[in-house]
Amino acid sequence: MLPNLTPDTALAERLFDELRAATHDGVGITREAYGPGEAKAHAIVRAAADAAGLETKVDPVGNLLMTLPGADRAAKRVVLGSHLDSVRSGGNYDGAAGVLAGLAAAAGMKRAGFVPGRDVTVVAVRAEEAGAWFPVSYPGSRAALGLLKPAELSIKRMDSGRTLADHMREEGFDPGFVEAGGTTFSAADTAAFLELHIEQGPVLDAEGVALGIVTGIPGSRRLRAARVLGEYNHSGATPRKYRRDAAIALAELAHRVDERWAELDAQGHALVCTFCVLATTEEAGFTKIAGEARFQLDVRSVNPHSVDAVMETLYDIIPGIEARRGVRFELGNETSSRAAPMDAAVQAGLKRAAESLGVKHRAMASGGGHDAAAFVQAGIPAGMLFVRNQNGSHNPHEAMRMDDFDKACAVVTRWAAEMAQ
Amino acid sequence: MLPNLTPDTALAERLFDELRAATHDGVGITREAYGPGEAKAHAIVRAAADAAGLETKVDPVGNLLMTLPGADRAAKRVVLGSHLDSVRSGGNYDGAAGVLAGLAAAAGMKRAGFVPGRDVTVVAVRAEEAGAWFPVSYPGSRAALGLLKPAELSIKRMDSGRTLADHMREEGFDPGFVEAGGTTFSAADTAAFLELHIEQGPVLDAEGVALGIVTGIPGSRRLRAARVLGEYNHSGATPRKYRRDAAIALAELAHRVDERWAELDAQGHALVCTFCVLATTEEAGFTKIAGEARFQLDVRSVNPHSVDAVMETLYDIIPGIEARRGVRFELGNETSSRAAPMDAAVQAGLKRAAESLGVKHRAMASGGGHDAAAFVQAGIPAGMLFVRNQNGSHNPHEAMRMDDFDKACAVVTRWAAEMAQ
Repeated sequence: MLPNLTPDTALAERLFDELRAATHDGVGITREAYGPGEAKAHAIVRAAADAAGLETKVDPVGNLLMTLPGADRAAKRVVLGSHLDSVRSGGNYDGAAGVLAGLAAAAGMKRAGFVPGRDVTVVAVRAEEAGAWFPVSYPGSRAALGLLKPAELSIKRMDSGRTLADHMREEGFDPGFVEAGGTTFSAADTAAFLELHIEQGPVLDAEGVALGIVTGIPGSRRLRAARVLGEYNHSGATPRKYRRDAAIALAELAHRVDERWAELDAQGHALVCTFCVLATTEEAGFTKIAGEARFQLDVRSVNPHSVDAVMETLYDIIPGIEARRGVRFELGNETSSRAAPMDAAVQAGLKRAAESLGVKHRAMASGGGHDAAAFVQAGIPAGMLFVRNQNGSHNPHEAMRMDDFDKACAVVTRWAAEMAQ
Repeated sequence: MLPNLTPDTALAERLFDELRAATHDGVGITREAYGPGEAKAHAIVRAAADAAGLETKVDPVGNLLMTLPGADRAAKRVVLGSHLDSVRSGGNYDGAAGVLAGLAAAAGMKRAGFVPGRDVTVVAVRAEEAGAWFPVSYPGSRAALGLLKPAELSIKRMDSGRTLADHMREEGFDPGFVEAGGTTFSAADTAAFLELHIEQGPVLDAEGVALGIVTGIPGSRRLRAARVLGEYNHSGATPRKYRRDAAIALAELAHRVDERWAELDAQGHALVCTFCVLATTEEAGFTKIAGEARFQLDVRSVNPHSVDAVMETLYDIIPGIEARRGVRFELGNETSSRAAPMDAAVQAGLKRAAESLGVKHRAMASGGGHDAAAFVQAGIPAGMLFVRNQNGSHNPHEAMRMDDFDKACAVVTRWAAEMAQ
């Protein structure tokens, strides 16, 4: 029989306010991966965990661990958490909600004098939004799990031009841990990982359901620095057959790839395909034909065949566009990530917890990628709990209701208490 | 019987070098309309005209007139010329070639002691490239011809945010001339206007012909500040049906408008259609669906029905894209200009001159707009002579051969001498 534990949601709500105040950038909140905003957020959360009586430590690559000790300290631990960094001018909840839910659960247990059978560790992972800053996925959790390749330390941040290793060192951490093959978490010492996160899309809100129990995280294929090269010419005096128009070549590519997506969507494929950036360059201007355009493409699905179907269309149609329009595509590096199914037992445990608490929920695939995918890759059973959220994520208007968050914290607490027995 | 006059092409070649040296910007040449680069060019050309013994004066809006007096000073004069300003980082020949050809003709006549029957005036018009700086067409020639509307003086330059009147005044000129309805040239005092210009497209070069005798200047319909508004959302977590993707809505619009152009082109319509700018904004970035995109559209033809056919397609398809994609188009102001046919007698005179000199030529429509269109609008017979040019125009790589230019100057001189008899 599980004790009736109450998460410390007041603590979480206070910390949401503190985080917002400390990292507001005038538009939204900015917590750069391995940068000053993230560092402020870690300091705030660590101080709160210390005050709540949890054991805190920071691993060599900067991940913050906040532990409620269990009766058997040698047993595999239960890990709850998410990340504290954000995209530029993002919202206050993406990432932070998972860390603060874990903290509410552990602090609630501590306050109740509850001693779990095994350690319950809340983790604030570094740099989950690295994708918005570095072209590398989940360096914080992957470094903690021994999955980050030493070569990835040399990848340069897009704005600063300095490497991931430089930025780690600048924040006081040790990229040598990655080179030495160290781990903070492994399948040998971790029983399960649960990540609470705001839903980043509109589905739960549109359907009137508070929580989503995630079935899997999509894999992706991505182009981050693709270009189309043509020739600048006079827009009035260059007949159609003499043009090498990069803008219209890109418009054709994007529209035809999107039409392929529409076709796959109608056939029931669950995938998303986004030209995040699609743009002529600074040099473009009135009375000129654009000689250059650039784009970023992000294709994701839990089903790799759906992703491949879109990318095959892209590669198939490019030679024809090049030949007809006299342009050349330079796609740059393609990066990819594998889909990660959530653990069936964790999903079942979350469902039990939600039902015993009478909270409305539904199963759903994740749209975005998350640190939980790295835990899956390391062989650790993982789960995710989505909380209904208005206005999407990665923008200043994220609007999770505290009532929904409180329900989610109760589910997390109950699941963790059962898991840590 | 016409005297065998020789244009002073050595003077023109020296002035091309001086202009290039004075207005090189590191990449190409920049002579801002009613700005410092244009002012330098006017000073260089005026000094040369003074030295050649021509009468020089500057009209109240800054156009430079360089006159070889004729026997009958009250007779309608013959005007030769073009402009000295340029787009940003443009080439040395677009505009300047027409002014220097006129100067070579007038200085050649003067050197030979030839006194024409009527004044031959070379004009260096201000601000023909205004379109690249202000959203207004040909303010220099239109002000000289009494066609510039006083309200247009309040149009703001896109980079400085200051009005055309401000920039005129800053260069020492008097926008009050426009308000007072003054004219420098009119049908009552001008027999004909001839503008030599580099061809701005590749046709003469591709066909191995030195000179083009222009049949007409295209009219246009243009969008200079159009936008598509959607909603920023997470690129992974927003299913297709919940998206409001401005980037892909714009790509669809541009591709479908371009397909309509291809169709019209195949049917024999002579027109050009260019999305000069087509771009998501600064706010776009990886893992975001673009909530905004902007574009500039330039559609031109000597046949207004061809332009209208493209614009009708644009207006027809927008509501469907808005409905399907949940976006909104804000097209901003549409500006337009009328097509201007060249005078048949001027065309015939140029043909006679070219044939008597044994220079290969062909008839062709202009692609770009030119000051000659304003003279047509004022009821003055006008013509244009295109010179073969490599690498297009409005870029630093314009590459007119001096041999072709010399032939063109000979044709201009012969035509002007006949016209001024």
